[in-house]
Parts: sequence; structure tokens; C-alpha cells
Amino acid sequence: MQMKTNAGSLADALGIVGGLVQRRGNIPILGAVKLENGTLSVLGGVGMRADIALPTVGKTRGAAAIDCHSLAGLARHIPRDEVVEITDDSSLAVIKFNGSEYQLPSYAASDFPSDMEKVEGDRSAMDNAGFAAALKRVMFAASTEEMRYYLNGVATINLDGEPLVVATDGHRLAYLSIPFMPNGAEGAILPYEAVAFLAKRKHEPKASVYSPDERRARFEYDGLVFTTHCIKGTYPDVARVIPKLPVPYARLGRLDAIAALRRLSSLDQFGGNPVVLSGSDDRLTMVRGVGDSCGREAIPCVTPQLGNFRVGFNGRYLIEVLSALRGDAVTFAASPDDGGIGSSPSVITADDDPLRIVLMPMRI
Amino acid sequence: MQMKTNAGSLADALGIVGGLVQRRGNIPILGAVKLENGTLSVLGGVGMRADIALPTVGKTRGAAAIDCHSLAGLARHIPRDEVVEITDDSSLAVIKFNGSEYQLPSYAASDFPSDMEKVEGDRSAMDNAGFAAALKRVMFAASTEEMRYYLNGVATINLDGEPLVVATDGHRLAYLSIPFMPNGAEGAILPYEAVAFLAKRKHEPKASVYSPDERRARFEYDGLVFTTHCIKGTYPDVARVIPKLPVPYARLGRLDAIAALRRLSSLDQFGGNPVVLSGSDDRLTMVRGVGDSCGREAIPCVTPQLGNFRVGFNGRYLIEVLSALRGDAVTFAASPDDGGIGSSPSVITADDDPLRIVLMPMRI
Repeated sequence: MQMKTNAGSLADALGIVGGLVQRRGNIPILGAVKLENGTLSVLGGVGMRADIALPTVGKTRGAAAIDCHSLAGLARHIPRDEVVEITDDSSLAVIKFNGSEYQLPSYAASDFPSDMEKVEGDRSAMDNAGFAAALKRVMFAASTEEMRYYLNGVATINLDGEPLVVATDGHRLAYLSIPFMPNGAEGAILPYEAVAFLAKRKHEPKASVYSPDERRARFEYDGLVFTTHCIKGTYPDVARVIPKLPVPYARLGRLDAIAALRRLSSLDQFGGNPVVLSGSDDRLTMVRGVGDSCGREAIPCVTPQLGNFRVGFNGRYLIEVLSALRGDAVTFAASPDDGGIGSSPSVITADDDPLRIVLMPMRI
Repeated sequence: MQMKTNAGSLADALGIVGGLVQRRGNIPILGAVKLENGTLSVLGGVGMRADIALPTVGKTRGAAAIDCHSLAGLARHIPRDEVVEITDDSSLAVIKFNGSEYQLPSYAASDFPSDMEKVEGDRSAMDNAGFAAALKRVMFAASTEEMRYYLNGVATINLDGEPLVVATDGHRLAYLSIPFMPNGAEGAILPYEAVAFLAKRKHEPKASVYSPDERRARFEYDGLVFTTHCIKGTYPDVARVIPKLPVPYARLGRLDAIAALRRLSSLDQFGGNPVVLSGSDDRLTMVRGVGDSCGREAIPCVTPQLGNFRVGFNGRYLIEVLSALRGDAVTFAASPDDGGIGSSPSVITADDDPLRIVLMPMRI
């Protein structure tokens, strides 16, 4: 095997894929990067694959598989404009640049699994429609708990005919409209790691291919193809969780509320005790007690339609929800028929922000 | 107890001292901040004390001791220009600002230990002489190993009549001249944590008071007094370690060498295997092998007086040493009579930088 590329492109490509690749796994080839025909390929630990086109210099022939993290550690420190020559005789790769020479263990490139190379399905042009940006905004609400593995990602669903991306951990739920449902994407659940990879890219993917049968999705960028399995499972029926015709019960300043919640969090980093919100007389009082300590905050608040109220939330969730929204004024709303504000889910939104968040109250 | 101060000053003061104070110790008062007569005082976990003057508003009376980390967590999130009122009835402190109210546990201020309040000794005006800056430059070489506790800091010594600050861990030694020896400082060893505190300040101390009998040192800044114990122990005889009349054997580019060493470090983060430096024909070759991997780097190098050489160093130390120096050209020197370059300590210096570093070779 022989190829030449420039150090900057190699380091960038390895930087993009490095987070996907397992460290110190039991099967060395799964921790390797395959170089073949100017394409750099890696497998992600949890059913992902990335292929990146590298610029090559001169003739390229053969294939090699080299430990990804070793090569990335080296490439990161080579001056970006150096030409790097990689040769390989199937058990030892030699990397040369500007008088320096490194030998790294290599593996047979033919052992590199090929099963994620293709995805059979209809291609959708993504038209810069903000799909990855939408994933990025809702992903904070996904669960990380392995018991409910089908919540460990972001789903694409139709809600009353409206295509959405949605994430929830059972306590809070975030959803956002997308302009259209990519072919084959309805009901698909992208794993959190894949969402994180897509969210980190500077650009939107140019196209997607979802295969409902294979439970796979492929996202194509200029010079990068990212393939991931989708979570095998059925997403909960979101329509049952979202309150019908919620009525606004509080309207307040988002940044004021975040600052007050941060102060309340200093009592113990929100180890379980709820923040109790009470609204009356155009003021919102937030109270929290932890052991011998307690704090009381008051901020201006309009109580539009339902009058005085009292509701408890997990303070950490509340900070995350308010931080996920944009703009200053946020509105809390609930369905008054669901048993009172204190025991029914609240819908939290910000003016001019399409993101919708549903937050379950805590018992107080 | 009652005092009013402004939130920004309180947060800044707690930010300065927060790193010193133990978290979750067994004795609550040692984790407390004492507020008395506009002075905020804390005790550091390993024999340190800091006293900071706070601006007060209106009348101040009494004293209180409040958990430092709780108060710091709260103060950090209060808008800086708010006035904060603290009152205390000896078991509960109440903190009020702009309509918010917090209750935090408090302790009897009379239990706050007073034994580090004073240091008996001669005061030295520090005249902005760069004492703290000198500590900061040599501290990287101090040991963190508890077995040789007397190396866990920076010593002030006289070497052939020249006042120095010096740190070593037995493998490398860094020293730097200071314009004068503060009164009582000769032979004193400042603990690493105290050095780190002094190094972090933006300004030099205005004055110092060393007490050789009490083994204590006090550093006075505008509005801040920092007191520390000195390590009880005898510093090694540095004069025996520093090579006499070392002869330059290699002269090379500092940044070139750091870049090459970083690439060699990618093989395994320098887990023990030495970097072998060979100089000949105006080139320095650096070779390192780790398991099946190996790397070879070559950079330009002048071999001034002793001709070809071969010496092994710990690569991580070598990166740290070269990073601690300034400027581009560095010179390696050794005493040729000490058994050859490969088995005697090297003195590493940079042009126009007064910092001197001695590095022990590794067996190769």
C-alpha cells in the first residue's frame, strides 16, 4: 500500500472521526482507520461508520488499516502543510514526512468490515433544510438511561401530519418542526452518538438515505459519508404526552429565571429537592430547601389566565430547558383540565422560537 | 452579626480563596469563611490562611463563619453590582440581595482558629522584584511524591552567594536568580499549594515576613494577606547536583524540538521509554520505540565543542523543560569529566533567559 496526502487534511479527517472509534477494544481492526483509494474509513463503536475523502498526491495503490488513535495523535502534531507518505506491508505501516519516520502496527485491510458500506433506500435531497440543526436543539432532552434504550436518541415522527424531531427522557420532552420528512425516516430513532456527530458538523448534510428494513441511515456531505444504525424499538406515542390546548399560566424573563435558578442550585447542585414556583401578584417566587439551607428568589412574572399557581420542578431540568430556548420572554402553559398546574405537564416556549418543550412537574 | 458588601467583591474574594479551602472536611469550621470587621478569612487545608479586605456599606458589627463553598457558589451567580446583606445569629446566616433571601448554616466565629493570624519576623519590602514570577517559573520541577515531602515545594537558597528559587523532583531541577533574599527566607521551603496561590496572583506581593522559628511566611498584597507554613525539612544541597563548568554539546531550535517530541509522545504518552538523542553532522536524531511502534525525528543541531553524542531522556520531562524555557535557541551542556554526556546531568538553557534547568539522563 502506498499513498501521499497532506498532513492538515489527514489530521482534520482523523479529528472528525476520532470520537467515534473505540479505544482499546478487544478487536484491533475495529479501532483501526482504513485507507484505500484516497478514502479514510472508520467504524464507530455503536454501529456507525464514517468515510472521508482525502486529497492525494501522486499515485495511490492498495489499502491499509492502521490504529486510528495512534495515527491521529501523530498527525495532530505534524505541520499542516507537510506531505505525508504512508506505506504498508500488511503488518507494519511506515509514515514519513520531512525527514521524520514512524512505524505503527497495521492490520490486514481485508479484515475491515464492509457491512455498513451501503444503505438500501430512497435518497432525499436535504436542501439545507436545517435537519441537523433541529436534531441539535432537541438532543438535550434525550435519555442516557440504558433501561429505556429506545429513548437514547432523537426520533423523526409525524404528529398530526407535521414532521418533527423529538427527544425525551420521560421527564421532559423537546420537539421541533422540520420542513419535510426525509424518505423512510418516519419512526426512525437516531442514536445519541450519531446525533452528536451530525450536530457537531459545520454544515447540513446534502442528502440522506434511510432504510427502514435495515434500520440504517446514511448522511452525505461533501467529502464525508456518515452511516449509522437506528435504534431498534418503538418510540412512545408523543401525542399522548403533549397537553392539548394548553393555556398560558406564567410569562417571565428567561435570563432572570436562569440566574435565579443558578443561585438556588448553589445549595447542592440540585440533588433531587424540587424548586417550588409560586406565582401571584405579578411575581414568581422560587423556593428551595436542602437540609439546613434554603433559598428564596423572586422575579417579575405575568400570570395571564389561570391566576395564582404553585408547581414544583427539578431545578436542573428547568435550567436546561430555559437554556435550550432562545430570546427573552418565556411562557409556561398547561391544560387546566388535567388536574391542576401542579400535577400536569407544562409546555414551555419562548417568543419567536419554534422549539416546544414539555416538562413534568415534581410532587411537592 | 451584620454586614453589607457588594456582590462582585464578595464573589472575587471567595474566588481567590476558594481553592485553598477543604471541601467536606470533618471539622466544619475549617471549611468556613469568617467575616469580621470587613475582613474575609479562610484557612487552607495544608497550613495556609488568607485574609481579604472587603468594601463594606454602612455599619458592620459582629462576626460570622459560613460554609465557604456554599457562599461562593451563591455569590458567583449574584449580579456584581448588587448590595449583599449578611446577618447571622450564630447558627444560621441570612444572605439578602435585591429581594432574594438565602439561609445557610453558620458556625460560631469564635471557633475559627487564630493561630495563623500573625507571623513574627522581619518584614521585607518586595519592591516588585519578581519573586512570585520566579516561583512560577521553577514550580513545574517540584516533586509531587509524598515520600520526599521536602521536595514538594520551592526553596529559597543562596548558591555561592547568589539568592535563588529552586525546585526539583530528583530527576530535573530548575533554578532562577532573585534580586535579593527576603529576610529570614534562606533555606525556607514554600509548599507547592502556597506557591501555586502566589503564582496565580496578578501582582507581586508588596512585602513578606518569614519566621524561621515558626516555619511560616506571610505575603502582603493590597487588601490581601496570605500566610503559609513552610515545609519542615532540609532542602538537598543543590550545589552538589549542578554540574561545574558545563560545556555546551548541542544547540537547537526549541520549538522544533517540542514539535518533534510531541509527535514521539503520540506513540504512548511517554510511558517510560526514553527518547534517545544522537547528535552528529549538524543533526539531532531523536528515536523512540514502544512495543511494535517506533518513531525517528531529525532536526538541525549544532554540536559546538564535544562532537558527536548520544543521550537518553524521559520525553515528558524534556517537553516540560523545553516548554518552561523561553525564546528559540536552547543549549544543552554537560561536564565532560562526569562520565560522559550519556551518564551525567545536562544543563539546559535558552538564550536571553535566566532560567537554568538541570536534567538527569535515562539509562539507554
